[in-house]
Amino acid sequence: MRVLVTGAAGMIGRKLVERLAKDGEIAGQVISALDLHDIIAPSKPDAQFPCDAFAGDLSDPVQIAKLIGRSPDVVFHLAGIVSGEAESDFDLGYRVNFDGTRALFDAIRLTGTCPRVVFSSSIGVFGGPFPEVIPDEFHTIPLSSYGTQKLVGEALLTDYTRRGFMDGVGIRLPTICVRPGKANKAASSFFSGIIREPLDGKEALLPVPRSVVHTHASPRSAVNFLIHAAGLSGETIGPRRCLTMPGVAVTVGEQIEALERIAGKEVAALVREEPDEAVWALVKNWPTRFEAKRARALGFEAETSFDDIVRIHIEDELGGRI
Amino acid sequence: MRVLVTGAAGMIGRKLVERLAKDGEIAGQVISALDLHDIIAPSKPDAQFPCDAFAGDLSDPVQIAKLIGRSPDVVFHLAGIVSGEAESDFDLGYRVNFDGTRALFDAIRLTGTCPRVVFSSSIGVFGGPFPEVIPDEFHTIPLSSYGTQKLVGEALLTDYTRRGFMDGVGIRLPTICVRPGKANKAASSFFSGIIREPLDGKEALLPVPRSVVHTHASPRSAVNFLIHAAGLSGETIGPRRCLTMPGVAVTVGEQIEALERIAGKEVAALVREEPDEAVWALVKNWPTRFEAKRARALGFEAETSFDDIVRIHIEDELGGRI
Repeated sequence: MRVLVTGAAGMIGRKLVERLAKDGEIAGQVISALDLHDIIAPSKPDAQFPCDAFAGDLSDPVQIAKLIGRSPDVVFHLAGIVSGEAESDFDLGYRVNFDGTRALFDAIRLTGTCPRVVFSSSIGVFGGPFPEVIPDEFHTIPLSSYGTQKLVGEALLTDYTRRGFMDGVGIRLPTICVRPGKANKAASSFFSGIIREPLDGKEALLPVPRSVVHTHASPRSAVNFLIHAAGLSGETIGPRRCLTMPGVAVTVGEQIEALERIAGKEVAALVREEPDEAVWALVKNWPTRFEAKRARALGFEAETSFDDIVRIHIEDELGGRI
Repeated sequence: MRVLVTGAAGMIGRKLVERLAKDGEIAGQVISALDLHDIIAPSKPDAQFPCDAFAGDLSDPVQIAKLIGRSPDVVFHLAGIVSGEAESDFDLGYRVNFDGTRALFDAIRLTGTCPRVVFSSSIGVFGGPFPEVIPDEFHTIPLSSYGTQKLVGEALLTDYTRRGFMDGVGIRLPTICVRPGKANKAASSFFSGIIREPLDGKEALLPVPRSVVHTHASPRSAVNFLIHAAGLSGETIGPRRCLTMPGVAVTVGEQIEALERIAGKEVAALVREEPDEAVWALVKNWPTRFEAKRARALGFEAETSFDDIVRIHIEDELGGRI
C-alpha cells in the first residue's frame, strides 16, 4: 500500500516515518511506497520501499493535488501550525489548519478512493471548566484558535467518513512528553523541560505549583497511536471517529519523583521552582485527566507510569545512558 | 441600532421580522434600520424604521460585503440550506452553510465593529446514541452534513467571539412545531402535520409509534429565543456561546392527546397511523429530551406543555378559531 505523511519533518512525523521504514508494513499490509510532505523537505528514511519527499505549503492546492493524485491508501495528516503560533497569527492558523485540512480532505473526496485517513487532533479541542476526569462524551468547546481548527478537522473527518468519502480516524493526542530537542515557547514546554534538561545536566525552571495534574504520553506512544489507528477497522470504531487517547495523569511533583527514582537525587535537584504567573494562568485552565475509555477498549495503549515515560526518553533519545 | 436578518424570507425569518417591526427595539435599544436578505426577496414589514430587502446567494462575497458594509449592530444569521437538502446536495450544503457562514463571519471580523451575532444552530449538532436526557455538556457529533455545518458555524462563532471579532450567541433550536404551511419532505414533517392538518379538517398520517419522544418549541418561542439572545450580555453568557434551547418533550401520543383536549375527539381522530419504516429508521436515532439548564438559567423560555403549543398555532395561524 501507498502511504502519505503530511507534517513529516515534525517531531512526531520524523519518528513515525522511521517506524514505518523499520516495520515495512501497517497491520500486516506491506508498504509499497511512502510520500513525505512538509513545509521544509522531510528527510527520507532508510527503507525497503521507494520514498519521495516534497516541500511546500499544504494550503496550496497544487501541492495537495500532487500528493493526493498519487492515490495513497493511508494518509497520516500531521501537518499543522502549532497552538502558540495559531493563536498569535490568526490568518496563518486558519489558512493552514482550517483551509489546508479542508482542501486535503476535499481532494481525497474527489478522488473517490476512500483511503484511511489518520488525523492528529489534540486535547486542545476541550476547553474548561472541566470535571475532575473528562469522559469521552464531554463537549468540545475549545479555548484557542488551534483547538477550534482541530475541532473543525474532526467534524469534517467524521462527516466525510459517514458519507463514504474517506475512512477517517481522528486521534486526540495528550501532551507529548518528553519532547526531545530544545525548549520552545509553548506554555506546556516545562512539562518536558523538567525531565529533559536535568537528564542533560542542566537546570530546568518549574513555573507552576507541584500539585498541577496533567496527562502525558511519550513520543513513542504517539507513534503507536498513529499506527494503531491506521490499522483499526472502521466498523469497529463506529460513526464517532475521533478518540481521546489514553495517557499517564500525574502531578508535576510525581513527574519529579519519577525522575529522582530513575536518575537520582542530584539530577532531580536541578529542577528549580520559579513561579511564572502568566504560564500558571494558562495551565490552570488546562484539562487534567481523561477517561479515554473508548480508545483503551479499541486497543490504544499508553505508558502506565511516568517512570516509563522517563525511561523511554532515556532509551530513545539518550542511547540508554544517563 | 441597525439590524441585519439573513434568511429573512424563511418561516422563522418572516416571523422575526414582523416582531422586530412591531417592537421597534431590542432589549431597550431602538431599531434605526433593518436590512433583510434571502435568496428570494424578503417582504418588507410595516415598520417605523427604514427597511431594505436584498435577494441573492449569501455564499457570494459581493452580497456579504454589501450587507456587512452597512455596519449592522445586530446580525441574525438564519440563512441556510435545510437538513434534507444539505444531505442530498453535498456541494450546495457546504457552499452555503459552511462557506457562506464563514464568509459572513470573516466579513464581520474585518469590519472591526464587533456586532452581536445571533446564529440559529440546531439540535442537529447532536448525534446518537444519547442518554435519556441530554445534558448541556454532551458532546456534539452530528450524524448529518447539516449538523456538521452548524457545528462548524458554532465553533467559528465561539472562537471569533473569544478573539473579540464579534459578540456571538448560537442557539440550538429544537424541532419547531407547529410549522405553518404545507407538509414538506423533512422526516420531521409529521410532528407538525399531525396537529396542523386535523385542525384544517384534513387527515394526517403518523409514520412512527405513538411512544416516540421528541422536543418541540413553537415558532413564537423560536422568535423569542432569537430576540432574547440578541439582548443578553456577553459576560453573562461566558465563553461557551452556544446554547441548547429549552422545549417541551412529549410523546407523539401526548401530542395527539393535547390536540384532542383542545379541538375534540373528531379532530384528533383525523390522525391515521401508517407506519413508515424509512421515517422510523431516522426518527429513532433522533435526540429525545434536553436538559437545557444553561439556557433556562439565562432566561430563555419555551412553552411548558404541548397544549400551549397547539393553542399558539391556533392563535397565530388560524386567527384564534378552530
